[in-house]
Amino acid sequence: MDHPSTDATVNARISPRGGLDILSRVEVARLRDASQGGLGELLRRCALAVLTTGSDSDDPREASQRYPDFAIEVQQQDRGIKIELRNAPATAFVDGEIIRGIAENLFAVVRDIVYNANEIAASPRFDLGTGVGITEAVFEILRNARVMKSFQDPNLVVCWGGHSINRAEYLYTKKVGYELGLRGLDICTGCGPGAMKGPMKGATIAHAKQRHWKPRYIGITEPGIIAAESPNPIVNHLVIMPDIEKRLEAFVRLGHGIIVFPGGVGTAEEILYLLGLLLHPENETLPFPLILTGPAESAAYFEQIDQFLRLSLGEAATSRYQIVVDDPARVARLMKEGLRKVREHRLDGKDAFFFNWSLHVPFEFQQPFEPTHAAMGALNLHRDQPLHLLAADLRRAFSGIVAGNVKEIGMRQIEKHGPFQIDGDKDIMRALDQLLAAFVEQRRMKISGRYEPCYRVVG
Amino acid sequence: MDHPSTDATVNARISPRGGLDILSRVEVARLRDASQGGLGELLRRCALAVLTTGSDSDDPREASQRYPDFAIEVQQQDRGIKIELRNAPATAFVDGEIIRGIAENLFAVVRDIVYNANEIAASPRFDLGTGVGITEAVFEILRNARVMKSFQDPNLVVCWGGHSINRAEYLYTKKVGYELGLRGLDICTGCGPGAMKGPMKGATIAHAKQRHWKPRYIGITEPGIIAAESPNPIVNHLVIMPDIEKRLEAFVRLGHGIIVFPGGVGTAEEILYLLGLLLHPENETLPFPLILTGPAESAAYFEQIDQFLRLSLGEAATSRYQIVVDDPARVARLMKEGLRKVREHRLDGKDAFFFNWSLHVPFEFQQPFEPTHAAMGALNLHRDQPLHLLAADLRRAFSGIVAGNVKEIGMRQIEKHGPFQIDGDKDIMRALDQLLAAFVEQRRMKISGRYEPCYRVVG
Amino acid sequence: MDHPSTDATVNARISPRGGLDILSRVEVARLRDASQGGLGELLRRCALAVLTTGSDSDDPREASQRYPDFAIEVQQQDRGIKIELRNAPATAFVDGEIIRGIAENLFAVVRDIVYNANEIAASPRFDLGTGVGITEAVFEILRNARVMKSFQDPNLVVCWGGHSINRAEYLYTKKVGYELGLRGLDICTGCGPGAMKGPMKGATIAHAKQRHWKPRYIGITEPGIIAAESPNPIVNHLVIMPDIEKRLEAFVRLGHGIIVFPGGVGTAEEILYLLGLLLHPENETLPFPLILTGPAESAAYFEQIDQFLRLSLGEAATSRYQIVVDDPARVARLMKEGLRKVREHRLDGKDAFFFNWSLHVPFEFQQPFEPTHAAMGALNLHRDQPLHLLAADLRRAFSGIVAGNVKEIGMRQIEKHGPFQIDGDKDIMRALDQLLAAFVEQRRMKISGRYEPCYRVVG
Amino acid sequence: MDHPSTDATVNARISPRGGLDILSRVEVARLRDASQGGLGELLRRCALAVLTTGSDSDDPREASQRYPDFAIEVQQQDRGIKIELRNAPATAFVDGEIIRGIAENLFAVVRDIVYNANEIAASPRFDLGTGVGITEAVFEILRNARVMKSFQDPNLVVCWGGHSINRAEYLYTKKVGYELGLRGLDICTGCGPGAMKGPMKGATIAHAKQRHWKPRYIGITEPGIIAAESPNPIVNHLVIMPDIEKRLEAFVRLGHGIIVFPGGVGTAEEILYLLGLLLHPENETLPFPLILTGPAESAAYFEQIDQFLRLSLGEAATSRYQIVVDDPARVARLMKEGLRKVREHRLDGKDAFFFNWSLHVPFEFQQPFEPTHAAMGALNLHRDQPLHLLAADLRRAFSGIVAGNVKEIGMRQIEKHGPFQIDGDKDIMRALDQLLAAFVEQRRMKISGRYEPCYRVVG
Repeated sequence: MDHPSTDATVNARISPRGGLDILSRVEVARLRDASQGGLGELLRRCALAVLTTGSDSDDPREASQRYPDFAIEVQQQDRGIKIELRNAPATAFVDGEIIRGIAENLFAVVRDIVYNANEIAASPRFDLGTGVGITEAVFEILRNARVMKSFQDPNLVVCWGGHSINRAEYLYTKKVGYELGLRGLDICTGCGPGAMKGPMKGATIAHAKQRHWKPRYIGITEPGIIAAESPNPIVNHLVIMPDIEKRLEAFVRLGHGIIVFPGGVGTAEEILYLLGLLLHPENETLPFPLILTGPAESAAYFEQIDQFLRLSLGEAATSRYQIVVDDPARVARLMKEGLRKVREHRLDGKDAFFFNWSLHVPFEFQQPFEPTHAAMGALNLHRDQPLHLLAADLRRAFSGIVAGNVKEIGMRQIEKHGPFQIDGDKDIMRALDQLLAAFVEQRRMKISGRYEPCYRVVG
Repeated sequence: MDHPSTDATVNARISPRGGLDILSRVEVARLRDASQGGLGELLRRCALAVLTTGSDSDDPREASQRYPDFAIEVQQQDRGIKIELRNAPATAFVDGEIIRGIAENLFAVVRDIVYNANEIAASPRFDLGTGVGITEAVFEILRNARVMKSFQDPNLVVCWGGHSINRAEYLYTKKVGYELGLRGLDICTGCGPGAMKGPMKGATIAHAKQRHWKPRYIGITEPGIIAAESPNPIVNHLVIMPDIEKRLEAFVRLGHGIIVFPGGVGTAEEILYLLGLLLHPENETLPFPLILTGPAESAAYFEQIDQFLRLSLGEAATSRYQIVVDDPARVARLMKEGLRKVREHRLDGKDAFFFNWSLHVPFEFQQPFEPTHAAMGALNLHRDQPLHLLAADLRRAFSGIVAGNVKEIGMRQIEKHGPFQIDGDKDIMRALDQLLAAFVEQRRMKISGRYEPCYRVVG
Repeated sequence: MDHPSTDATVNARISPRGGLDILSRVEVARLRDASQGGLGELLRRCALAVLTTGSDSDDPREASQRYPDFAIEVQQQDRGIKIELRNAPATAFVDGEIIRGIAENLFAVVRDIVYNANEIAASPRFDLGTGVGITEAVFEILRNARVMKSFQDPNLVVCWGGHSINRAEYLYTKKVGYELGLRGLDICTGCGPGAMKGPMKGATIAHAKQRHWKPRYIGITEPGIIAAESPNPIVNHLVIMPDIEKRLEAFVRLGHGIIVFPGGVGTAEEILYLLGLLLHPENETLPFPLILTGPAESAAYFEQIDQFLRLSLGEAATSRYQIVVDDPARVARLMKEGLRKVREHRLDGKDAFFFNWSLHVPFEFQQPFEPTHAAMGALNLHRDQPLHLLAADLRRAFSGIVAGNVKEIGMRQIEKHGPFQIDGDKDIMRALDQLLAAFVEQRRMKISGRYEPCYRVVG
Repeated sequence: MDHPSTDATVNARISPRGGLDILSRVEVARLRDASQGGLGELLRRCALAVLTTGSDSDDPREASQRYPDFAIEVQQQDRGIKIELRNAPATAFVDGEIIRGIAENLFAVVRDIVYNANEIAASPRFDLGTGVGITEAVFEILRNARVMKSFQDPNLVVCWGGHSINRAEYLYTKKVGYELGLRGLDICTGCGPGAMKGPMKGATIAHAKQRHWKPRYIGITEPGIIAAESPNPIVNHLVIMPDIEKRLEAFVRLGHGIIVFPGGVGTAEEILYLLGLLLHPENETLPFPLILTGPAESAAYFEQIDQFLRLSLGEAATSRYQIVVDDPARVARLMKEGLRKVREHRLDGKDAFFFNWSLHVPFEFQQPFEPTHAAMGALNLHRDQPLHLLAADLRRAFSGIVAGNVKEIGMRQIEKHGPFQIDGDKDIMRALDQLLAAFVEQRRMKISGRYEPCYRVVG
């Protein structure tokens, strides 16, 4: 149902929608400067991602190649701003008018990129060298994006899973989204294609049938991934977090429960991240519904994941997740039940509904990980350490592979230095190697083309 | 994405939603009596249709057979009403709660059946023996159902087409609905499956992307057809007209333009009805956008229809419709342009936007046609008469075949007396026979099973 | 704060607001004809009353004399209607634009006058010769005016009292309205000046302070009284009942409790009406909060009323009302407590919140009373009859005096035949005479000028 | 209509309304600490002012004396906050429930006091040593209070005038507010009694009649004055600016036009401030409607003001204001016309509607003035300087007298050191002395008691 991807382009001027409408002179100048100065390239890249929504490519460089003359400029006007687009993808427009959801997401990009640069990175307000400071920054970015609702019972389900999944899996994610929507639940995803789009489409139809007013379809992304995973315009709240670790923290603090669909290394990274947290002693009694699910055809996938988790993190890890095969209604019912417990726990602890302050996120999970060859080689993938630290480094290993697969910065490094070397306990390495091989075979690494591994398991 | 059709049942009591909430004692008693008295069986049948939405069957008797113990009763409570359901299809419920859109449609059924019986049929208010009286009745039923909006520019597109269409055609109807929705247009259909459901689903996704508030998905049906074409719960305004002729009049007076997708005899009936009106001298200058469209695979279908129309109604007929093959965006652009002309015309003529008073509907098109063998045999399908009268009788011929195919009353007659005999000008009869044969071959007559013709062209 | 009453006039065309926007051709024609035909004079008179709001006169003929060339016409336009005003009072306009509340009330006048004529008086639908038929008609008129809310807890307080009250009394009614408004209660009055305006103004300020959304200020009037008691434009729901008896029934079926401020014979009529109902054996257990209240200066007034009620209806009558002197907050608290009981009683009896079906209104209280000299002379004001029948005739006696004082039809009769003669039990007559004399002395009969009694108590 | 002022008290816990509902852990802690730490006394004093709304006293110390045990504490709860009140004035409550408008204003107090302390005073973000920095701070405080509307045509009228005015003047301010409200204009005042309350009450009634949705009644105050001028709960946007100069800047940047009613020295201060700005060469072509108005009885007052302005600032000053005597409708019409010009000017200059960035406010008008005896003695009230600087020092002279009259800090100084000495050009001093003497005579200095001048004109 998406627009044909042609390379036709249009020029347009867009007025702010939903925020960015009451700005001071200083802010207007700052936004204008941003588009002309150091943030310009970042802004251009993210804006292009929003405008090429519906594209079937996950190659971050492709959009730039197809729209080489695309330019975005924030202009001062009426003591407010307008966005000037030149040579923008025609697919984002209907008869010359930009699709409203795309316009909103475009302004979200401007809002967050400038906010992250000025109020988070360059401000003394947050001590990003401490866990508390990082969490506070995550909170501020989400509040500035107005995604938190104060009088809302816990109903936000985060859906994780691959951007490159097969048709049966995609239809399954729609069905699960539909069943969640029938039960009045809102959806949050990483906002790309595949498992990040299906649940929102399914929920949209269900919300219409249930006359669910003001549903939230929240997309949380980050500059490194947005180009590969264009936000779908169903997303009515888009947030760009500064990096992948803050994005992960945003998911687990904002969402009340998580569903994982089949996916590739990115999905594995997410599972490891969450289990690493949930296995930490301080989170032992915290309820956090986590369901792994897929269609019958994908049953093997979760068996492999399950085996890998048991082997690497131990049997205890299995107590924190449930695997459901081919039963969307059951997934939704389990999630609803899980959310009930989350609600009770928050009430008991006088915790807020809109942000999971009680969840302990160790500093190891918050520090940005830069996937250089050195860093990847230095990962400690041995069992002689606390479980959550092993999980943290396994998470980093997957994170590095994601970067090598689909992020510009990672791809450039692999081209230069060859595949990353990953080392650790022999059995873990073997299991890891098998899991990755399975991802390759099941075509979960990249949407198109023959996959050339960006890693080598040494073990 | 629809619920699995099992025969599980539930009991439930439903409170009124959207109307029927402020009733007098007399009205409450009347509604209660209706469910216990003469209207009970009609109410039961229509309610079951609403509750079995998503079913893939078009056999009106199947639902009754699958839910033999289903019962509905309107109860007096709090000086208002509740609906008591016993042994109702479990598929209409989510975890024991009825889907809200289904509940609304259920109350629409109660509302319209009682209104049609008491205020239209049994009231001296409308002289149903005159065209003016019938039009007034159509207006009242629509107003009572609150589907007319007073300050709304013309934006309501009626989509006609088959309930039994192939997958490519169904996806095409979704795409057209999506393109209409992107342009802010609302959808009205006969509210069954196939071409009546696809445009609404596509529009729902587009409306979400365009943040279109309060979209209208209007379903117009009648007691004879509802059982075969269950209303989809995306429909947020359901209206049950008393008979097929008033249903057709509701479509053309309420809608501002019409799109016809591939379909069978029902669709042919609708095309003949509308062309019959538009070819009437009094409607000569009235703008009324009419677009016939389908995917590339269905190009042949519209060629056949086109040929049949040229042959039977003459070349002039072709000036009132456009055929577009495989181009959803173009369909939507043409419709939008057509609606602009409708708007101007209404403004010029000081006509209302919400009801097409200016359209002349000859009395022949308003009179209920009962498809008995005698009536079918008496049709005048010869050219020696005004064009619109020929169109009227061709419409009736198709109408009779629809009844023989999927309406209980028609099916019973065919079982008893054998196929209808249809006679007329030789070349028209030959063309008709070919058209019907093509429908049979393309499986447009019935959803499942081998099709046994209910007619015989004599000619 | 009201506009200066000058005799300046303006011409204007007004578009419908809130209703009358979706009309059939027949209805448009009927409305147009109404303003040109038999209903024209009635319409003109009522419209002028709405437009002269804020006037300090209660002489129904004065407005006509001041605006002799005023004309109103309902015009057909856009298959809808517009109202054309010629030589209308300039005070209803601000810089050439009609005050929106006045425009709404103007359309309410058109709506009700035509509805009462066509759907009530001239329709076979209601048997106005029976109590049930009259009640059904009252319900229909209120529903057509959309004043009933379905999901609203009982919170509608009817305020009765004189249009001609002194400043201390007027300020007191504002204070009571303010205290009611602070407690989230809505107001219904007869919508003239004095005690009918004060509570609404007070409540408006309180509702603003309490951020009470969508407050209801309901005005219920009738053609005979509207000219003397112009509706204040704070009234956001105006209803014109066909006659005084249906107006009284509307008050007691719609309102959940009643407060009576000082007033004259009209107020006395209202008290007698309500007590007549509440003393009927069938209403014995029905909760109905009734509070008589005024400032300290008016204490004597309620003592006189109280005495008259005890004497004429017996001590038992006192159990149905409370007298509160000079304590607005206490009045509001008592009323709130009373409404709580009403709510419980309705829940227990499964009665609607929006219309008091359970209240028994004997037919004697429903029949229109025409205050001719013969009818006034025939009243049975003796104790040898059921209490509620005595109350009914006492009510009629006061009603006749109201007509003689401020209604055109009554005033004309008095001019012709001299004062009404009222006869009955000696002690009742003496008490009545004293009460009326006190009204005269306290200037409660007429706003201005020396009062010439229109009655003579024979007794 | 206000509550009887008794010294009865209640204890209560209040939940946030309109803001302060989504807070971070750090913010919650900061708010809690504020109420316990250095800001506690300031918070207590301002909260008490909000809670004693409707009091007739302007003695800032009286409220504290009447409610000596009043305490307010911000509590952490549910990772949010609650406000705990102990021994709070019972007059702010209705049957134990706080009046919603008062609760909102209470949270506004908490919000602004903490914001001003943490984000303005103690933050490096704003360079309060520069004019640009101060203006940016004013903007931020107003935005944080959410009083600016982005898509609203200029319609905000600031009403200035005395808190201590006579009844005729008070009724006149209501009438002007009523006429402004009839024309859809919103009101902004200093939010105390008298001329600050009347226009809001009048507008409330008019807005109800005009069905004006979401009217704005903005009150702008500062910690030094709030105790003497309690915010009326009609105020639905309360803002506490850090000091009197930022309050004045907020008025002239937020408001689109200004009406001045009779008042005392505070009003004179405001007039001098605004004329000082408007006479500055950079503001020469800036449209800014300014109307001085009062009832017929107060004509003399404006003659005196007019004379004083002509004498001290020259005839040119008179071109920037209009005096209207006793004609509320004309005032409203002139203002409406003035706002039309403001709108055009902003459109031409591409200036925002919501904040008057173009107005040049010289630094002399922004610097906080501390009215010590030394500072008052050092004022330069001679003509040998630019006009706007003379106006600036005249403004300061009046400001000092206001402090000596009704602010705690000023009153204490006068008690200690005797009256302020004011010196300058002889004729200006004489005129000033006469003006002040007239204020004393007209009882405009203080609400009650004999007035003891806090100044001595030396001249």
